[in-house]
Amino acid sequence: MREELAAIVGSEHVREPEAHLLVDQTAVSGMAGHADLVVFPGTADEVAAVVAWCYAHDVAMVPRGGGTGLAGGAVPVDGGVVISLERMSRVRSFNPLLWRIEVEAGLTTRTMQRLARENGLLFPVDPGGSEQSQIGGNVATNAGGPHTFKHGSMVKWVTGLEVVVAPGELVRLGGPTRKDVAGYDLRSLFVGSEGTLGIVTAAWLRLTPAPPVEIALAATYPSVAEGVEAIERVLASGVVPSVVDYLDGNTLAVAAGAPFDVPEGTGMALLCEVDTREEDVAELLEALGETASRPDPTELWRWRDGVGLAVDGWHGGRISEDVAVPLDRLAEAIERSVALGAAHGIDACSWGHAGDGNLHTSFVFDPAAPGGRAAAEAAAEDLFAIAIEMGGTITGEHGIGWLKRGWLSRQWAPAAVRLHEEIKRTLDPKGLFNPGKKTA
Amino acid sequence: MREELAAIVGSEHVREPEAHLLVDQTAVSGMAGHADLVVFPGTADEVAAVVAWCYAHDVAMVPRGGGTGLAGGAVPVDGGVVISLERMSRVRSFNPLLWRIEVEAGLTTRTMQRLARENGLLFPVDPGGSEQSQIGGNVATNAGGPHTFKHGSMVKWVTGLEVVVAPGELVRLGGPTRKDVAGYDLRSLFVGSEGTLGIVTAAWLRLTPAPPVEIALAATYPSVAEGVEAIERVLASGVVPSVVDYLDGNTLAVAAGAPFDVPEGTGMALLCEVDTREEDVAELLEALGETASRPDPTELWRWRDGVGLAVDGWHGGRISEDVAVPLDRLAEAIERSVALGAAHGIDACSWGHAGDGNLHTSFVFDPAAPGGRAAAEAAAEDLFAIAIEMGGTITGEHGIGWLKRGWLSRQWAPAAVRLHEEIKRTLDPKGLFNPGKKTA
Repeated sequence: MREELAAIVGSEHVREPEAHLLVDQTAVSGMAGHADLVVFPGTADEVAAVVAWCYAHDVAMVPRGGGTGLAGGAVPVDGGVVISLERMSRVRSFNPLLWRIEVEAGLTTRTMQRLARENGLLFPVDPGGSEQSQIGGNVATNAGGPHTFKHGSMVKWVTGLEVVVAPGELVRLGGPTRKDVAGYDLRSLFVGSEGTLGIVTAAWLRLTPAPPVEIALAATYPSVAEGVEAIERVLASGVVPSVVDYLDGNTLAVAAGAPFDVPEGTGMALLCEVDTREEDVAELLEALGETASRPDPTELWRWRDGVGLAVDGWHGGRISEDVAVPLDRLAEAIERSVALGAAHGIDACSWGHAGDGNLHTSFVFDPAAPGGRAAAEAAAEDLFAIAIEMGGTITGEHGIGWLKRGWLSRQWAPAAVRLHEEIKRTLDPKGLFNPGKKTA
Repeated sequence: MREELAAIVGSEHVREPEAHLLVDQTAVSGMAGHADLVVFPGTADEVAAVVAWCYAHDVAMVPRGGGTGLAGGAVPVDGGVVISLERMSRVRSFNPLLWRIEVEAGLTTRTMQRLARENGLLFPVDPGGSEQSQIGGNVATNAGGPHTFKHGSMVKWVTGLEVVVAPGELVRLGGPTRKDVAGYDLRSLFVGSEGTLGIVTAAWLRLTPAPPVEIALAATYPSVAEGVEAIERVLASGVVPSVVDYLDGNTLAVAAGAPFDVPEGTGMALLCEVDTREEDVAELLEALGETASRPDPTELWRWRDGVGLAVDGWHGGRISEDVAVPLDRLAEAIERSVALGAAHGIDACSWGHAGDGNLHTSFVFDPAAPGGRAAAEAAAEDLFAIAIEMGGTITGEHGIGWLKRGWLSRQWAPAAVRLHEEIKRTLDPKGLFNPGKKTA
């Protein structure tokens, strides 16, 4: 295997599986995989040749981007070849005046964001870990982030994809054209497919002019219920904030140093961003209520980016899930999700993208304490069940990956699950693309 | 057949195929179909039962919305049962404060737009013929319109679908939750599938606050090239207009009575809309150039809505296509498309959604004159070939329907066409959903 793959990508680009290539962000919950080899193709044609070889030899393939996933989607759970896209990070074409760019899958999200900014444009997809996260992974997971509330997730920004499909063919779906309804929307089908239908090698992205302002607002409330009432006032204001995030009281207690006042007994904070104009701020401040303030945006988002690490440091272990519910169930979902921690005898906290009804609830445990991890896993399963009961979803942006395998068939009716499985069989008849992931 | 279908939907809801149920807007180019029966189910369960009966008896089904399609997608070309959704026009739930609504497929687009407006919201999908056009048809075609430039086409506004799939099962894909990456994106797969994968019975839509202003701008240019240069200045201005439409000189000559000055020798007009704020208008006026004016929006869009009818009246017959190209090819595409008329000895004109590179070029003929229709059809085929040559698409928003059958395999590579066809076979193994439509 090694020799034949080396003949395709060059021997220096076939490596033994080093530990850091066998994990993603789920490593904090103890997940790690194993693989036979890791290959680093340099071109789309090389990816196609690697896939053709693997497909002919019944070898499983696990595509790998930046490894910032939170569902184990990039972890090779059962051997095979890890295909890292990191060498494919070129900008193939960039036309800022026409608001579009074509990039390879291995370009980091941060580089994409920076290129846009430097040219007066915005690439609004901002999942966590953007220094490591790659465009191919953003496509594979339909990545979101805080700005999804106004600007949509990855699928909205992709006008075309270059993908290697079974049994090793390079196909182009869409391209630089902004509108195209000619074939079935295969482009959207691959977005969010978590590497289980093929391997994305490049994407045509649309961009949009950078917003004229980016004003941050924060407000606190004694309870989750009062915070969610404020969200309803924000929606009724007529202003569309670019971000409507929340943090619950437990999160605020753990993530010290917020650049806004957090009074004793705070049950919830809301963080908003306005990217339209200064005049809209007054309306939002009124909607947010008397505790609302305007923290420095750089300080606010830097602190917010550190929340996950602060919670990791709480007890050392964490399982974090990202269910989403219809907005009218948001307060109940947050309260019940945090209560699941106590029900299982561990700590819990919750933050996330309130405007999209997207909770990131974390169950926190001491990895050295007996039963901690098991309790967190049990709480996470209860959380999925609550989301489904509320008509929501087990995952708003992280994906099913490996950790949520088997849960789709509790969320979807049998006929829909059958379609999901038939699509997989049709596009990957041998089941070699990222096996075990995104299973129903 | 009649008796058994009547047992499902009631005998008063099974009708002989009246002529107006066998055509769509392609009637002006002479297209009409034939069917065995037309059924009007009243509920999603009735649709499922009709599909189950048809699937068991190998009877073709042609779903029908408002009949405003321009590609023959709703025309029953080879008999079978037409399934009209017009009785299913209920609003199942509406929560304006949470920006969402659940509606049945037969609700008209205009009613949806009005409901949104009356509640301070915007439903920005606006294909032509919105009085007749229905939400189910908007889903089936991934309908666009002028506002797609800023607000996206139908797929962006659908968070969930209720669909009847083979062999007669009602499935729900998504729902009111704003973010959901649990399963493959089957929702997007059905959007734009033109009734060939199943029958949409209801949709959950997201809405957005109504914009604070809607300011119309118009400007004229001596040539298409100068008009397209103005578009590039508009894109560079940093303001995102909600509409960037164009009309060429021939269209302006035929559609008299524009509510802005059209000097002798005008080669192109641009129509823009700003929905952000009054302050943005100055920047756009500057980008549009010295001929730019602010016509009354109601007058402007009423006149614009009448352009198609005016062109219909030019010689009586018309074939209108809607290719789209990358923006850097727009000027060339418009000029070459209009020149195709002369090359085939007939008149031609072009208008469309310039900002999206989406041309509606019309080839106009006298239906009584020998060879007129054939010349228009030949010109349309040349137009498709030009769009493909430019890296664009044979259809930006109308769909493939019946008229563009066979052209996808010239636009897409064989491997992509194979995926398209495998998806169809997987979801509709008997090929009974809208046969002959959206074929590669």
